[in-house]
Amino acid sequence: MYSESDHRPIVQKYGGTSVGNVDRIKHIAKRVSEQVEQGYQKIAIVVSAMSGETNRLVGLVGDINPKAPAKHYDLAVSAGEQVSVALMASALEAEGVSARGFTAYQLGIVTDEYHSQARIQEIDCRKLFDVWERGEIPVIAGFQGITRQGEITTLGRGGSDTSAVALAVALDAAFCEINTDVDGVFTADPRVVPNARLNLEMDFEVALEMASLGSKVLHARCVELGAKYRMPIVVRNTFKENDSDRTKIMSFNDQQRLEAPVVSGVTLARDVVRMTVDCMPPDQRLVSGLFENIAEAGVNVDIIVHNRSDRRDAMRLGFSIGRSDLGKTLEILDAWKGGVSAEPMIDHEEGLAKVSVVGLGMQSHPGVASRCFAVLSERDINIHMISTSEIKISCVISEGQADLAAQALHEAFLDE
Amino acid sequence: MYSESDHRPIVQKYGGTSVGNVDRIKHIAKRVSEQVEQGYQKIAIVVSAMSGETNRLVGLVGDINPKAPAKHYDLAVSAGEQVSVALMASALEAEGVSARGFTAYQLGIVTDEYHSQARIQEIDCRKLFDVWERGEIPVIAGFQGITRQGEITTLGRGGSDTSAVALAVALDAAFCEINTDVDGVFTADPRVVPNARLNLEMDFEVALEMASLGSKVLHARCVELGAKYRMPIVVRNTFKENDSDRTKIMSFNDQQRLEAPVVSGVTLARDVVRMTVDCMPPDQRLVSGLFENIAEAGVNVDIIVHNRSDRRDAMRLGFSIGRSDLGKTLEILDAWKGGVSAEPMIDHEEGLAKVSVVGLGMQSHPGVASRCFAVLSERDINIHMISTSEIKISCVISEGQADLAAQALHEAFLDE
Repeated sequence: MYSESDHRPIVQKYGGTSVGNVDRIKHIAKRVSEQVEQGYQKIAIVVSAMSGETNRLVGLVGDINPKAPAKHYDLAVSAGEQVSVALMASALEAEGVSARGFTAYQLGIVTDEYHSQARIQEIDCRKLFDVWERGEIPVIAGFQGITRQGEITTLGRGGSDTSAVALAVALDAAFCEINTDVDGVFTADPRVVPNARLNLEMDFEVALEMASLGSKVLHARCVELGAKYRMPIVVRNTFKENDSDRTKIMSFNDQQRLEAPVVSGVTLARDVVRMTVDCMPPDQRLVSGLFENIAEAGVNVDIIVHNRSDRRDAMRLGFSIGRSDLGKTLEILDAWKGGVSAEPMIDHEEGLAKVSVVGLGMQSHPGVASRCFAVLSERDINIHMISTSEIKISCVISEGQADLAAQALHEAFLDE
Repeated sequence: MYSESDHRPIVQKYGGTSVGNVDRIKHIAKRVSEQVEQGYQKIAIVVSAMSGETNRLVGLVGDINPKAPAKHYDLAVSAGEQVSVALMASALEAEGVSARGFTAYQLGIVTDEYHSQARIQEIDCRKLFDVWERGEIPVIAGFQGITRQGEITTLGRGGSDTSAVALAVALDAAFCEINTDVDGVFTADPRVVPNARLNLEMDFEVALEMASLGSKVLHARCVELGAKYRMPIVVRNTFKENDSDRTKIMSFNDQQRLEAPVVSGVTLARDVVRMTVDCMPPDQRLVSGLFENIAEAGVNVDIIVHNRSDRRDAMRLGFSIGRSDLGKTLEILDAWKGGVSAEPMIDHEEGLAKVSVVGLGMQSHPGVASRCFAVLSERDINIHMISTSEIKISCVISEGQADLAAQALHEAFLDE
């Protein structure tokens, strides 16, 4: 698969389970050395910390000081990727491939100063071309960066994927390969829907929706970055030889969009909570003020439903959040309520899940939504909230019926 | 003990066992916070990796590639100190002390390019004064450095002690405190000589001899650096409150030299091998050529005895080495022998030890050597080789009699 892009670099990212032990690291080094032997020289490898290592380091800092500043967490945690870099470089040398390790500061992966959730601002790639010129393979620490003041940062969840895609963009790479412990992006979670199939090609937009809606293979952030710069992302299984079983995420052209399947996947997000604020005065400023407070607290609000209350001249507002944000959200609502004269009623419902149908072809098939509702109602699955966009339909349902709903929707739209 | 030096910085180094677990790190942070509360602000903390961590990382690299280039070892191993820095900084914050962590590259500890045994060339301390200005305590990774090309290096055995003393020199500190798991430098190893006492004050010269001759508390390299720049080194136990039980190593003035005890310590080095080369032609160039070859191989030759052979017109050369260098030394001798026409006879004797008596006062007491021999011969201890200098007498003896010899010499010279 490398022949057509011989002149452009390739970035290969290996995640925590892929570098989880000595044998796995050796396996990867063997693969890379074979590619180098096949004549492909401009490979850049990005590695995560060995699985479990980041948690061990976070645990150590937490044991010492649960309120340690994020900069100290970042300093501790980034050691994990540094070790992986050294091990991968050593494994490559054992295969006869000269390797050069790079931490974020050694390469120059500059981020902003938001410790533990930093964003990459700039990557200096010149050193990599020098390294390739000398016939060496660079191995780069993912997940970490450095501020312009020289402080170590980390990129937050999905950080190593983001490092890899950002590096691919900076290098104008042919593509960015995300090597992981699954074969790619499936039409549904195979543990829930046994008939789930691998998507061989996906448009960025669909992949982004699936990542946002609960597919755990890729983080939305890295897909977003790929989409922004049209950098193809190949998701593949580190330990499968067969290179055709993988998902390529790319920008579809018009023809491809036309021919895209109506539905590409069914996703499932559990632990959804519905908040309800009833008997609100019909004042739009009250609503926007509330959502500003919620956003400032870092709570991700998903579906919002806003309509008339049963009470005359009043409104009812519903929105969904993740269960981990419930405490924070209740506090905000309580404080907000104090400033509202009409005493709105606040309620919440736990034990919900969100099932979504995603696909580029839905734009031209308006019947998808109604078929979706029909499929769920046939199974006596009650829909609590609905949200639609051009390429997805999300339904909040009871968590107990989540698996059944995903299976039913997959059967209706995706089973062959 | 800080009152007299309030205006000058102090460097405190904590070794691997001192930062070996969460509770120990918390204990140290408490001590530092108390010192800060007492008004002492300019403290710089240097930490080693948690005990066992360096070996774990070396083991991982070794499992992947026993012949991995030293630069990859250094990259892996230096992660250990980085974690200790983050943990110590977090512990200080828990005690209400603002801390700032520094890896070698963040501070600017520049070394040469000899990976795994690098030497410090320069330390940029300006950042530390800025940190103190802001009321923060700097925590610095020991053992590691960075080359001018930006590659991570490590300093080899005793590296963190060397980092600390070098930093103290660069800062013009009042003194460098080496916090460890023993109370200081004893007159002998207390496990061998139960009567061993703590030396409260020692001259650099004596401390250097003792470190070179087998006292394991300090590495010769760090004492050498302290001696060169007259930077006092205080060796103390991390976990003892009492600050008067410790050893201060410093430059004695003339008065102190006069009053120095005749003997400061008895040291013991095991695993000594005596090499003998007999029937050599009396050609000095042959001998110097041999020792050049040995030095190039990194073998440390200790005592050298060179005198007439039993055979007429021939010489006998004896020298002692450590057992770990035996294989290498035999190879060198074998190769060297091929170039000597007279076919010298090569022999070696294992199972030896070196017992030494060290003290500044010996310079003015010529009777120490003869008393030494008398004490050993009284115990029927046979002396295989002897080496003397102005401040030490070393005798190579049978390893089986080593403890007895150390006890006897301590009793004769040091028991009160």
